[in-house]
Amino acid sequence: MPVVVPLAEIKKALAAIDPIPLIEEGFVAYSRGEVVVPPVGELVFNDPPGDVHIKYGYIKGDDFYVIKIASGFYDNPKLGLPSGDGLMLVFSRKTGVLEAILLDEGYLTNLRTAVAGAVVAKYLAPREVTAVGIVGAGVQGRMQLDWLRRVRKFEEAVVWGVNEEELVAYRRDMESPGLKIRTTLRAEKVAAAANLIVTCTPATAPVLKAEWIRPGTHITAVGSDTAAKQELDAAILARADRVVVDSLSQSELRGEVYQAVNAGAIGRDRLVELGRVIGDQKLWRASESETTVADLTGVAVQDIQISKAVWLAIRPAVWSAPKAT
Amino acid sequence: MPVVVPLAEIKKALAAIDPIPLIEEGFVAYSRGEVVVPPVGELVFNDPPGDVHIKYGYIKGDDFYVIKIASGFYDNPKLGLPSGDGLMLVFSRKTGVLEAILLDEGYLTNLRTAVAGAVVAKYLAPREVTAVGIVGAGVQGRMQLDWLRRVRKFEEAVVWGVNEEELVAYRRDMESPGLKIRTTLRAEKVAAAANLIVTCTPATAPVLKAEWIRPGTHITAVGSDTAAKQELDAAILARADRVVVDSLSQSELRGEVYQAVNAGAIGRDRLVELGRVIGDQKLWRASESETTVADLTGVAVQDIQISKAVWLAIRPAVWSAPKAT
Repeated sequence: MPVVVPLAEIKKALAAIDPIPLIEEGFVAYSRGEVVVPPVGELVFNDPPGDVHIKYGYIKGDDFYVIKIASGFYDNPKLGLPSGDGLMLVFSRKTGVLEAILLDEGYLTNLRTAVAGAVVAKYLAPREVTAVGIVGAGVQGRMQLDWLRRVRKFEEAVVWGVNEEELVAYRRDMESPGLKIRTTLRAEKVAAAANLIVTCTPATAPVLKAEWIRPGTHITAVGSDTAAKQELDAAILARADRVVVDSLSQSELRGEVYQAVNAGAIGRDRLVELGRVIGDQKLWRASESETTVADLTGVAVQDIQISKAVWLAIRPAVWSAPKAT
Repeated sequence: MPVVVPLAEIKKALAAIDPIPLIEEGFVAYSRGEVVVPPVGELVFNDPPGDVHIKYGYIKGDDFYVIKIASGFYDNPKLGLPSGDGLMLVFSRKTGVLEAILLDEGYLTNLRTAVAGAVVAKYLAPREVTAVGIVGAGVQGRMQLDWLRRVRKFEEAVVWGVNEEELVAYRRDMESPGLKIRTTLRAEKVAAAANLIVTCTPATAPVLKAEWIRPGTHITAVGSDTAAKQELDAAILARADRVVVDSLSQSELRGEVYQAVNAGAIGRDRLVELGRVIGDQKLWRASESETTVADLTGVAVQDIQISKAVWLAIRPAVWSAPKAT
């Protein structure tokens, strides 16, 4: 029988795991072609609006394959339910035996997404951060800010949200003696103050405009993971000195790059994959004046790396292989 | 929290369910375009050999979507493990909340496959069955024989297997006062005696040859569900009066029809979808002399129908919706 691991146990296991190097190694392996990641499985619903993504695959030579299911149902908060949900399944690569059902309720997806934001910032953000900009005051907007503190020093964050209530809650949750939170309903205020911006909304029309962005800014867009979603004006990508994607193949079908290429704003020859950036110092930010963009659609290798680490931490105490009959 | 349902509970729930009309309704809805079934997700492994299929989707207007994962790892029996494994996940279509994890260990996939074989036979098999032929003496070879008894009368089955041990076991398990089991290591003996044949092997080269097949025979091929697997000589499809598939779109990528079309043996214009056959008496077997073939690659709508029925049977006693926070 597979071991069913509830979220509380997953969080306990994570306390002893540093996911940044894990996610970095995952991206590097992915860009080297060492990871089998089939196209994302997808269901998109209209009434009520929701989407479900199935991401799966394995690292060649590894002991496990992983299937991750994550959903966003954006009217759920009206029912008092979180919009995100999900689980990760860890299987033996030798026998297909399902070893673990990680009932992470979308937490591991949120975590690996936030960690990817930190990984991007480590290589592409300016050294001197005037302020961090967070566009989207939800769960991911909180986690991105937390993880950016692991790779850059900053004392202020400017946060855009869709209403005052969520901004008040954001400031209440996130402000601390070392970190001032300013909130706004006008996204241009984020761009005016911040030179390290993360967008994490389910927007289907640009929230940030190109003319607002100051030279020397880095923007990571993590919200757009379908063909319909878009957070950045295509001209932002066109004007950037560098456009990085987590997955070249996924960027053909979804995300900011998909939108910008479709609009004729950029050519695919300008794209560099994150795993290559990590492994090649020449692709890191070269000066404080560069403007850079990273478009993250979320790759199964992140799910593989994080779920495997959690399971390997828990496994010795709980796993017994199925008995031969 | 989702309800985790072990196989024993699933089997209890099935005792009160007649899956034949459920699977029929599923195929009819599918062929009418009322079911959203994205392309099958797939992982194929070589060392040891195995494949994993992710089938998922929903019936429009329904309360649930279903994600099914099933694997075949063909060296598992050497380790004393069954080759097939799997689980089905039932989610609320309105919120994305995972309601049930059906740990069916591949049983529901085996069941819905066997039921599909019975549905096909109901409409396409000869009325007078001289003997049933079963090619492949594994679990599916047993279940197909069981379910064929629901739709046709017969007193003999001729069973081909890869070795005497499995054939002895098959006869021991399946022979009964009303049913004589003959076994053989030569597949042509199956074709010589039977006019209703089901192939259920993981073969990658034809097991049945066209010259062996007698006029008036119906063959259902259920084993081939990847691009590499093949059980039937392409000429069998070429010579058939009628070639039925469970899914036109899947038959472009996998199964016997994929092989036969690739070989130039048949054109796609000859194919009819099973859901259309069920709904249109003109497409049923017209005479005892027709030779017919059905190629089943397995469609998510079968998984949706069977898992939904199991969950609806169990749900009232165990389910409590997540509380609004």
